[in-house]
Amino acid sequence: MTTRRDVNLGILSTAAAAAATMAAGESFAQAPAAIALPPPAMEGGGKSLLQALKARQSIREYADRAVSNQDLSNLLWAAWGVNRPEHDGRTVPRWRDAYLLDVYVIRADGVWLYDPKTHRLVFHMAGDLRGQTTSGQPFVATAPLNLAYAVDMSKITGESEADKNATAGATAGVSGQSVYLCCAAAGLATVFRESVPAALAKTLNLPQGQVIQFAQTVGYPKA
Amino acid sequence: MTTRRDVNLGILSTAAAAAATMAAGESFAQAPAAIALPPPAMEGGGKSLLQALKARQSIREYADRAVSNQDLSNLLWAAWGVNRPEHDGRTVPRWRDAYLLDVYVIRADGVWLYDPKTHRLVFHMAGDLRGQTTSGQPFVATAPLNLAYAVDMSKITGESEADKNATAGATAGVSGQSVYLCCAAAGLATVFRESVPAALAKTLNLPQGQVIQFAQTVGYPKA
Repeated sequence: MTTRRDVNLGILSTAAAAAATMAAGESFAQAPAAIALPPPAMEGGGKSLLQALKARQSIREYADRAVSNQDLSNLLWAAWGVNRPEHDGRTVPRWRDAYLLDVYVIRADGVWLYDPKTHRLVFHMAGDLRGQTTSGQPFVATAPLNLAYAVDMSKITGESEADKNATAGATAGVSGQSVYLCCAAAGLATVFRESVPAALAKTLNLPQGQVIQFAQTVGYPKA
Repeated sequence: MTTRRDVNLGILSTAAAAAATMAAGESFAQAPAAIALPPPAMEGGGKSLLQALKARQSIREYADRAVSNQDLSNLLWAAWGVNRPEHDGRTVPRWRDAYLLDVYVIRADGVWLYDPKTHRLVFHMAGDLRGQTTSGQPFVATAPLNLAYAVDMSKITGESEADKNATAGATAGVSGQSVYLCCAAAGLATVFRESVPAALAKTLNLPQGQVIQFAQTVGYPKA
């Protein structure tokens, strides 16, 4: 499990994170802690796309083992990462030229917001809120991590309410499928879930306009 | 471009299609025509998943060239195919144990319904309806094909209207991202589109309860 001490060491280990620390001012204690993730592992023994699709499945039983920073790096980049930095291109489509998503990583060591531009986890909130990401699925509370897909409804304009909700759902679905495939390629276990309590958005103190559309549990399969 | 004559030859070329023809009764002329697709190309020089994610992008300019049956096979299987036949497992998740989707393939030679269980295109409707899958994006009418994601809203139960629409959107988004990645892996061009006229569902004579949630244009990139 990552500790706050690991987090601080992580921050000091990369130039990007060091720059972010400096930008936050002189008092490091007051700056948001962050975890610099290793770059996504583009090369190496990953499955081909079609082999990952062949292996894609939902798994609800998880080993008692934290997700490594490398695996987390790959799956967050797949979900919402920058793939064409020259124009902030992402692994997911824009909607009418807007990006709608934030991805929160909810673990035993607190809640983290994934920042695609610096490929870091930014500390968002203390406490183990894993169990609050579900209405009635006990495996969620002890799985290593849950992703919560937060969609900014205020950025979806010119559509009916039904279409707005469909666009919000599609935004989460696109990222969710990438996480599914990433997990299938690397031997991780995951399930995309719709039963997210409405109260979670309030608990997470999300910005005005953001709602949680779906969550996704991730871990390693139980042996 | 595939012609109805090619279609008939395609049917006679595989045992599965021949069985379907027999099941339809004695009069072949009244049976739905179908195109048997080759199996998805699981092996070979496809990109790794992460390399496909790196190359994922939206492209709106297409070469004047039909999509090959092999590429179409790969991308329809990615969108909605059977990946674990022992229990009708698919490349996409179920929603509360139900599959919600139908994928229509809209080309110059008519409208086809993808049948995941037999991996065939089943003839649905004559006519070139490509231009009717958009409100105002001219490239759509001449691109080789458009996928229309039809979601059966009547199968989504126990949710608010907002959540139903989000689930419908997520259903399309999941498949749409797989098609994006398939196109990125194989050098095809695609864009997932929300601007689908409501009238399309009526034109396509969809079953009660089905609505079109998003469309996706596919072709080869313009040289």
